[in-house]
Amino acid sequence: MTISVNLNADMGEGFGAYHIGDDDSILKIIRSASIACGFHAGDPVTMRQVVQRAKEEGVSIGAHPGFNDLWGFGRRRIDMKPEHLEYIIAYQIGALQAMAAYVGENVTHVKPHGALNNMAAENLDYAMAIGRAIKAVDRNIIYVTNFGSEMEKAGRELGLKVAREGYCDRQYEDDGTLTPRKIPGSVIKDPEAAAKQVVNLVVNGVIISRNGKRIEQRVDTLCVHGDEPTGVATARMARNALEAAGVKIMRLPDMQLT
Amino acid sequence: MTISVNLNADMGEGFGAYHIGDDDSILKIIRSASIACGFHAGDPVTMRQVVQRAKEEGVSIGAHPGFNDLWGFGRRRIDMKPEHLEYIIAYQIGALQAMAAYVGENVTHVKPHGALNNMAAENLDYAMAIGRAIKAVDRNIIYVTNFGSEMEKAGRELGLKVAREGYCDRQYEDDGTLTPRKIPGSVIKDPEAAAKQVVNLVVNGVIISRNGKRIEQRVDTLCVHGDEPTGVATARMARNALEAAGVKIMRLPDMQLT
Amino acid sequence: MTISVNLNADMGEGFGAYHIGDDDSILKIIRSASIACGFHAGDPVTMRQVVQRAKEEGVSIGAHPGFNDLWGFGRRRIDMKPEHLEYIIAYQIGALQAMAAYVGENVTHVKPHGALNNMAAENLDYAMAIGRAIKAVDRNIIYVTNFGSEMEKAGRELGLKVAREGYCDRQYEDDGTLTPRKIPGSVIKDPEAAAKQVVNLVVNGVIISRNGKRIEQRVDTLCVHGDEPTGVATARMARNALEAAGVKIMRLPDMQLT
Amino acid sequence: MTISVNLNADMGEGFGAYHIGDDDSILKIIRSASIACGFHAGDPVTMRQVVQRAKEEGVSIGAHPGFNDLWGFGRRRIDMKPEHLEYIIAYQIGALQAMAAYVGENVTHVKPHGALNNMAAENLDYAMAIGRAIKAVDRNIIYVTNFGSEMEKAGRELGLKVAREGYCDRQYEDDGTLTPRKIPGSVIKDPEAAAKQVVNLVVNGVIISRNGKRIEQRVDTLCVHGDEPTGVATARMARNALEAAGVKIMRLPDMQLT
Repeated sequence: MTISVNLNADMGEGFGAYHIGDDDSILKIIRSASIACGFHAGDPVTMRQVVQRAKEEGVSIGAHPGFNDLWGFGRRRIDMKPEHLEYIIAYQIGALQAMAAYVGENVTHVKPHGALNNMAAENLDYAMAIGRAIKAVDRNIIYVTNFGSEMEKAGRELGLKVAREGYCDRQYEDDGTLTPRKIPGSVIKDPEAAAKQVVNLVVNGVIISRNGKRIEQRVDTLCVHGDEPTGVATARMARNALEAAGVKIMRLPDMQLT
Repeated sequence: MTISVNLNADMGEGFGAYHIGDDDSILKIIRSASIACGFHAGDPVTMRQVVQRAKEEGVSIGAHPGFNDLWGFGRRRIDMKPEHLEYIIAYQIGALQAMAAYVGENVTHVKPHGALNNMAAENLDYAMAIGRAIKAVDRNIIYVTNFGSEMEKAGRELGLKVAREGYCDRQYEDDGTLTPRKIPGSVIKDPEAAAKQVVNLVVNGVIISRNGKRIEQRVDTLCVHGDEPTGVATARMARNALEAAGVKIMRLPDMQLT
Repeated sequence: MTISVNLNADMGEGFGAYHIGDDDSILKIIRSASIACGFHAGDPVTMRQVVQRAKEEGVSIGAHPGFNDLWGFGRRRIDMKPEHLEYIIAYQIGALQAMAAYVGENVTHVKPHGALNNMAAENLDYAMAIGRAIKAVDRNIIYVTNFGSEMEKAGRELGLKVAREGYCDRQYEDDGTLTPRKIPGSVIKDPEAAAKQVVNLVVNGVIISRNGKRIEQRVDTLCVHGDEPTGVATARMARNALEAAGVKIMRLPDMQLT
Repeated sequence: MTISVNLNADMGEGFGAYHIGDDDSILKIIRSASIACGFHAGDPVTMRQVVQRAKEEGVSIGAHPGFNDLWGFGRRRIDMKPEHLEYIIAYQIGALQAMAAYVGENVTHVKPHGALNNMAAENLDYAMAIGRAIKAVDRNIIYVTNFGSEMEKAGRELGLKVAREGYCDRQYEDDGTLTPRKIPGSVIKDPEAAAKQVVNLVVNGVIISRNGKRIEQRVDTLCVHGDEPTGVATARMARNALEAAGVKIMRLPDMQLT
C-alpha cells in the first residue's frame, strides 16, 4: 500500500508594497496553498495573484484566515465571542472563494493562522466556531487541524472532513503540542533534521518530542514555511526525502481523509 | 399590463458599537437589501444579522461594496488602478456570499456605495472593473446602475443583467445625473414630493430635473434611504403611492430586466 | 476641610458617519474629558472637535487610548508584548497632544479604555507599559487608575501622578474590582442608587460591594458614562448629590493628588 | 562661501512582519529622516525604533505623513475635505512627537508622502491644510516642499520655515514638476547620472529636464530613496559627489532657510 501525504504552506502574506516569503519557489514544492485573506496579511490583489499561480502549478486552494490584526501579523491572541469569530472566518472564506472563482476553482481547505490556530488548538469554543463557519459556507471544505487538538475534535463533532496536520520545521512537546516559538530551537532550521522528522512521522506515524519522548500520531498534511530563510530548502528536502521513502505527495482534496 | 418596480436600500452600515439607520423599519418597505461589506461600513457580525433579517422579511440580498475607508464612510473618491478596484469588489461580494449561505440565499445584486458609485457612474474604467468582478464571481448577479450612466453601459457591454436605478429622495440635474449632495435641496426631505417623483418616474418614465427639465428614463429599481431622519417616512409614502398607482413592488431577482 | 473630587467621562467615541453618546450634555457635567484617540474609536476630526468643545466648557483634556480594534470597540482583550503596548499608548497620547495644541491646552491625564483598562488593572506588565508611555511622553500627565489596581501600583512605582478612580454607575465585587459587564446588574441604571454610591464613596471613603461587603477606598475621580441611555441623568444626579453634600467638583490637573 | 544642502530619506516604512528599504544603510548617508507615521506605512513600534537609530546616527527627525491607506502604500489619491486632511496630518505629527520624546528630540520637519505629496504640490487647498497642521502643532517645524510647488507657496503664506526639495533619483518635466513614476525612466537608476544631477542642482542651481530643458532652481534638501534596489548606492554616490564638490551636508534644522 502506498502512503500518501499532502504538503501545504501559508501563501500570499504580502500585500501592496510588502513582500514576505518566496511564494513562487514554495508553490513548486507544495500541493496545497493556505492563502491569507486580508485580515492578518494579504489583500484582494495578492489573493487574486496567488490563486492564479496556484492554479498554474496545480496546487489546491485553501483559506488561511486570521485575526484582523495587520500590525501584529495575526500573532496576537484576541479574545472574541466565538460567534463573532465564526463570522470573521466565514467572511474570509467567502472572500477567497470569490478569488478562486476567477480561476474556476473551489476553496477546498481552511487552515487558521498564527494565534488563532494556537487558540483553536486549545479552546474548543474557538475550534467549533471555525468549524461552524466552514460548515455554513461549504460543508465540503476540509478543516486542517493540528493533530490531536481541539480543532480535530471540533471538526469530527461537526461531521467535517478533517486533515490532521504536522509541522515540517517545528519541534513538539511531550503532549504532542507545538513547542512555542519563543523557546529557542522551536523552529527547526536544519533541513536534514526536518526531513528526518517528517519521514518518521509520515512513514512510521511517530514524532520525537523536544525531550525525546516518542509520540504516535498519523498525519494527512505537513506544513512547510516560505518565510523563514531556510524554509524553501527545508521544504524541498522534506519533499525529496518523502518521495525517496516512497511516499506519494497529493493535493488535499485528493487525499483519502478519515 | 402591470408595471413593476423594485425598492432597494442600503443596509447594515453600522458595526460593533455603532448604529446607523433604521434597518428594521426599512426592511418592511423594501424588497431588496444592499448590504455593506465591511469596507466603508458594516462588519461580518452585522452582515450576518442583516442577511438573517432580510431572509425573514423575504427581501433579496445584494452587496453594497465600497472603498476601504471607514473614517470616510466610503464618501471620499479614491483613485485606484481599475484592476485593483475589481478585486476589492470581488472580495466584498464573496464575503457577503458566505453570509448569505447561512440562510440558504444567493447574493443577487451588486450596488456600489457612495463615492465609488459616483465615480463608476462617470468613469467607464471603474464601471467595467465592477462589472468584471460581478462576472467573475457569479454572472447571474444583477448590476444595479444609475440609469444612463457608464455603469449601465459597462453592464450591457459585459452581458450582465442590469437594473436601472432611480433615487426616491434625490434631485436630478438636466443631464440625468444626481444633484451632488453638497448642493442645498439635493436630498428631497418632503415625503410627498418624493412620492410624486417616483410615481411619475415609474408610471410615466419621466423625471423632472432640479431646473425643471423633463427627462425620460425607465427604471427597474428605486433607492430609498434609512439613514436620513425622514428616510423611513419617505420610503413608506413612496411605496404606498406606487401601490396606489397600481405598480407592483418586486424583489430584484424576480424583475424582468432588459 | 472641603472634600473635592473630579468627574471624568469617555468622549469622542464616534467618528465619520458614526455617533455615540451625548458628548455635549456630558461636557456640561464633567470636569475632565477622556478622549478616544482613533484606535478603538474616534478619529482625528472628532478629536479636534472634542478638544474644542472641552476648552469651551473649561473641561480638562485627557487621552483615552485603547487597543487598535474598531470592530470590537476596544472591548476585546489582546495579548501584546508590553513594549509594543507601550508604543501604541505613546502614539495615541502624542496624537491627542497635537489636537490639544490647537486650543492651547495640554493633555493632562491618560485613562485606558475598555479591555485595555481591565487588563492593566490586573496585569502589572501592562500597567507598567502604560505608565512608561506616559512618563516618556510627558511625566506631568496624570495616570488615571482603578483604585487599588496594578495600574495604581505601576503609577506609584514610576513616580507618576496617580488619580484613583471609582465608577459612578458600576457595581463592585468584594475585592474592590469592577463587576464584569456580563453580570446582570453590573451597570447601575438607577440614577439615585448611583448618586448614593458616589456620595458615600467620596465623603466617607466607603463603597458597598454587590454582595454587601463594605470596602474602604479613597477616590480622586469618578467616571460617568454618556453612552448608556441613563448615563446623562445618572451623571447629573451624581454631580448634584455631591455638590449638595458639600463636595467640590474640580478639573483633574487642579486636584491635590497624593 | 560654502554651499550646504540637506539629504533626507523616507524611513520606517515597514511594520510588524514587513520590511521595506535598507534604513540602516541610508541612515549613515542622510542627515534627516522622514519617518512614516502609521497611516500609509509604519507603526508605533517601528517609529520608536527609527527615532532611536536616527538619534544614534545624529540624523534629525521629521514626520512623513500620508493617507490612511496601508493597502495602497499611500500612493492612491484620496479626495478629502482639506480640514479633514489637516487633522490627519496633525495627528500623525503628534504621534511622532511622542516617539521623538523618548530620545529627547523634536520633530523638526514634515514631508508628505506619495500621493499626498503629489496632490499638495498641485493643489493649494491641500498644501495649505498641511501647512496649517504644522503651524498648529509646532510652528518651528520645517515644511519640506517640492521646489516651486503650491506647497512652497502655502508654506511661505503661512510664515513657516520652508525647505525646497529636489529629488536625487527622479527625472523632471520642463515645468519643474517630477516626471510621474509610470513614465519609463522617471526613476534614475544610474548612480552616476543621479550624482551628476544633484551636483549641478546644488552647486549651479540648475536641473536639466527629461526633454533637455534647463530649469533654474535652488534646493535646500535632496531626497534619496532606500527602497529602490539601487537606492543606497545612488544615495552614497550623490553624497560623495556633493562632498567632492565642496558642498557641506547638514541636518535640516541646522540649515539656513530663506
